[in-house]
Amino acid sequence: MEAKPTTASYSETTHIVLPNDTNVMDHLFGGQLLAWLDMSCAISAHRHARTVTVTAAVNNVSFDKPIKLGDAVTIKTHVSRAFSTSMEVWADVWTENQFTGEKVKCNSAIYTFVALGPDGKPREIPPVIPVTEEEKVRYDGALRRRQLRLILAGKMKPEEATELRSIFP
Amino acid sequence: MEAKPTTASYSETTHIVLPNDTNVMDHLFGGQLLAWLDMSCAISAHRHARTVTVTAAVNNVSFDKPIKLGDAVTIKTHVSRAFSTSMEVWADVWTENQFTGEKVKCNSAIYTFVALGPDGKPREIPPVIPVTEEEKVRYDGALRRRQLRLILAGKMKPEEATELRSIFP
Amino acid sequence: MEAKPTTASYSETTHIVLPNDTNVMDHLFGGQLLAWLDMSCAISAHRHARTVTVTAAVNNVSFDKPIKLGDAVTIKTHVSRAFSTSMEVWADVWTENQFTGEKVKCNSAIYTFVALGPDGKPREIPPVIPVTEEEKVRYDGALRRRQLRLILAGKMKPEEATELRSIFP
Amino acid sequence: MEAKPTTASYSETTHIVLPNDTNVMDHLFGGQLLAWLDMSCAISAHRHARTVTVTAAVNNVSFDKPIKLGDAVTIKTHVSRAFSTSMEVWADVWTENQFTGEKVKCNSAIYTFVALGPDGKPREIPPVIPVTEEEKVRYDGALRRRQLRLILAGKMKPEEATELRSIFP
Amino acid sequence: MEAKPTTASYSETTHIVLPNDTNVMDHLFGGQLLAWLDMSCAISAHRHARTVTVTAAVNNVSFDKPIKLGDAVTIKTHVSRAFSTSMEVWADVWTENQFTGEKVKCNSAIYTFVALGPDGKPREIPPVIPVTEEEKVRYDGALRRRQLRLILAGKMKPEEATELRSIFP
Amino acid sequence: MEAKPTTASYSETTHIVLPNDTNVMDHLFGGQLLAWLDMSCAISAHRHARTVTVTAAVNNVSFDKPIKLGDAVTIKTHVSRAFSTSMEVWADVWTENQFTGEKVKCNSAIYTFVALGPDGKPREIPPVIPVTEEEKVRYDGALRRRQLRLILAGKMKPEEATELRSIFP
Repeated sequence: MEAKPTTASYSETTHIVLPNDTNVMDHLFGGQLLAWLDMSCAISAHRHARTVTVTAAVNNVSFDKPIKLGDAVTIKTHVSRAFSTSMEVWADVWTENQFTGEKVKCNSAIYTFVALGPDGKPREIPPVIPVTEEEKVRYDGALRRRQLRLILAGKMKPEEATELRSIFP
Repeated sequence: MEAKPTTASYSETTHIVLPNDTNVMDHLFGGQLLAWLDMSCAISAHRHARTVTVTAAVNNVSFDKPIKLGDAVTIKTHVSRAFSTSMEVWADVWTENQFTGEKVKCNSAIYTFVALGPDGKPREIPPVIPVTEEEKVRYDGALRRRQLRLILAGKMKPEEATELRSIFP
Repeated sequence: MEAKPTTASYSETTHIVLPNDTNVMDHLFGGQLLAWLDMSCAISAHRHARTVTVTAAVNNVSFDKPIKLGDAVTIKTHVSRAFSTSMEVWADVWTENQFTGEKVKCNSAIYTFVALGPDGKPREIPPVIPVTEEEKVRYDGALRRRQLRLILAGKMKPEEATELRSIFP
Repeated sequence: MEAKPTTASYSETTHIVLPNDTNVMDHLFGGQLLAWLDMSCAISAHRHARTVTVTAAVNNVSFDKPIKLGDAVTIKTHVSRAFSTSMEVWADVWTENQFTGEKVKCNSAIYTFVALGPDGKPREIPPVIPVTEEEKVRYDGALRRRQLRLILAGKMKPEEATELRSIFP
Repeated sequence: MEAKPTTASYSETTHIVLPNDTNVMDHLFGGQLLAWLDMSCAISAHRHARTVTVTAAVNNVSFDKPIKLGDAVTIKTHVSRAFSTSMEVWADVWTENQFTGEKVKCNSAIYTFVALGPDGKPREIPPVIPVTEEEKVRYDGALRRRQLRLILAGKMKPEEATELRSIFP
Repeated sequence: MEAKPTTASYSETTHIVLPNDTNVMDHLFGGQLLAWLDMSCAISAHRHARTVTVTAAVNNVSFDKPIKLGDAVTIKTHVSRAFSTSMEVWADVWTENQFTGEKVKCNSAIYTFVALGPDGKPREIPPVIPVTEEEKVRYDGALRRRQLRLILAGKMKPEEATELRSIFP
């Protein structure tokens, strides 16, 4: 299959944090953000694969900065790398100061999606061509993260994870 | 602070999968499950810490078996280990055959929560005493997972992660 | 059909009261609680009958203590008695003090469900075996409540309600 | 306080049954209808009392005819009788044939609301003057239903319920 | 087809403004009101046409007075005029002072709906007979508004809009 | 105040049409689209004004092509022109073929927002500098549309609408 550039899977969405999305400190619930991230990543996965895609895994998401009631939250996503029938999708989360408009990147998340054919079975998808410098770094790290995910899910033995082991000197 | 057994943080919730929770294949959206998991884990975190708690991270969740429209999904959670001001929370996801009632564990997820004081700053929480055999295994692995999370978030160097390195022979 | 113990229909769910669930006094709306109760009772009814079940009636629910924004509300349900094709389901509502963790039972509700076969017609269900002392009391009172419900719905004459009349000396 | 006619508390609302409001048989969930009924009754209670009102009880609701996906459900409510600080509210539920427009009354429900003052304590409300024949019958039966509710809630002894006993010859 | 009076399409619905419906000033979002208006107008359109109806256009809606959190918002709608397969629907928005009960008309909106047959194609509908004086004025103005809508949508040339031109002396 | 280019107010959001967003023909409800449009326009209005903004009016929206269940709907908005304290915001609606990825513009909508200061009163905003050719055309037409809106709202006499009259030869 012909490779597609990351630009083919770009997706962007802005949400406003409403009262029901927040906890007692008026900060966005982690669970609501996870649901928004999943939907945005699904759109990118679908744009790359052009077939049904389903969430296979969420890989390590950190919530470093609280997001407040009334904030505009922009989620930008792209497919960072494809592995036969699955793909890694990155989401970058930006918030925007209401008065100055200053945009701050407050979070990144990584999801894994699987492409399915009409028979509900995994289906091959095109490779990804990273475009920006950051996308190239993400592309290179994707194999390590995949090995890590497979080990944690008990589907790969640590000694087989050659890419991953290289980060432990 | 006096340690608390895992039983102090047990939480259980059952959801029915409604049409708006599903994708075109009539399977539960990953994002909706992530939001339910976060809410259930938050209840356990709060029962252990008895103060405000917020999601700090989601650690590797795999969606292995699709969950279908109309299914009853039971989420059982407990705090598996505490680290000064943060805690690891495990969620086990069970579905139930509508006709036979057979229950199948279809998923496990791990979230990290931080406890906050009234000033919004991290606050110390009690240690955890695991009760069942499974909880003891989870307790023992929690330190490795924590090191992994800190490395991935760029907050710890791989060479400092002594626990984690031990799994790479 | 073989009788089933009440334990076969136990269901438990915890909700957090969010802003949209509350009135101007920041107390949980009665209607929201009624909807949560119905869903929980439906899960118990289904676990007992293992077929489609639908709400047939709500029998006298009192809201004695207000439930507040941010409270954790735990609903525990079980089928208390079966009558050929219908069953009485009890729901006990507990709230939990956020800081001490003290649990208080603030409400009980009784719903009636009917079991339906694939043809949409009422279908026979197994009898119920009460387990705890409280469940035995509920089992014994169920016939009286059923007669009361049928009289109020105009489906039984007061003079036929022999069980019910016995409470009026 | 000056009495108010039932017309002062009339409220009417029409809902369309959407997919998320229905069970696997594409019928409206009982819980969703209970929530709609509570909101409509609350509007009538407020129109009569002109102060904060909260649900005190749901008195016997029967779901006799299933309501289907896409149906228009019209709920008409009015306060049927006031008792010092509480009031009984009746809701009549109508559905409407999509093609012929024929309207069928498929359900009636009775809720009890309490009026609260700014201090959160029960507050006196005006008496009700029934207008139609049906409202007069409802007004007359309200005292019996109130005694029944108080007995079931353990707040009145059966031998004190003089009105109620009269229906058991 | 036999003409129907406006009374055949009357619809009325009351909503309470909840926290998630409001902006940072605790006023009802314009978008939420637009969605409520569309649903109410759809009910009226369906009552007139007795077939599937879909929104074709929204014609100039002004939001003159802010509606506040907790307010009761009553929307009354009727079909004001039919044009072969489409119809103009008016919605009047009333709010109600919580304490005095005084009702104020705070808004009017005009939507256009198209009636569809089972084949998904536009289908003829009955003419409308206006009943009140206000409805007669609305009936008379409907043709001008229709020409305006068609010009703005690029489907009619200004010089053909004979009705509309008459208001520019 | 210093003028801002249209690029300063660009906003983009993609929604997936879920079951609860659709009518019996599995097409997106007009009301749901209107609510999404309002939220997106509000984000653009806020990015231009950097103060609280509220919807003042919806100007003629046509729904020409049905949008289907499961479709990805992308809404792109920008402020097209500012008038002292109010601004016109354009929204373009795109759908995307699920299999080919072909994007089709299926709708345009125009909303008017007002900027408010901390005192809740209208507040002056910067002028707009259109960037693309299409934005220049929209900028030029905005004055005519504003006059039309004021006439329809009864706030301007037709003979004063000099811009608008020019389109009627």
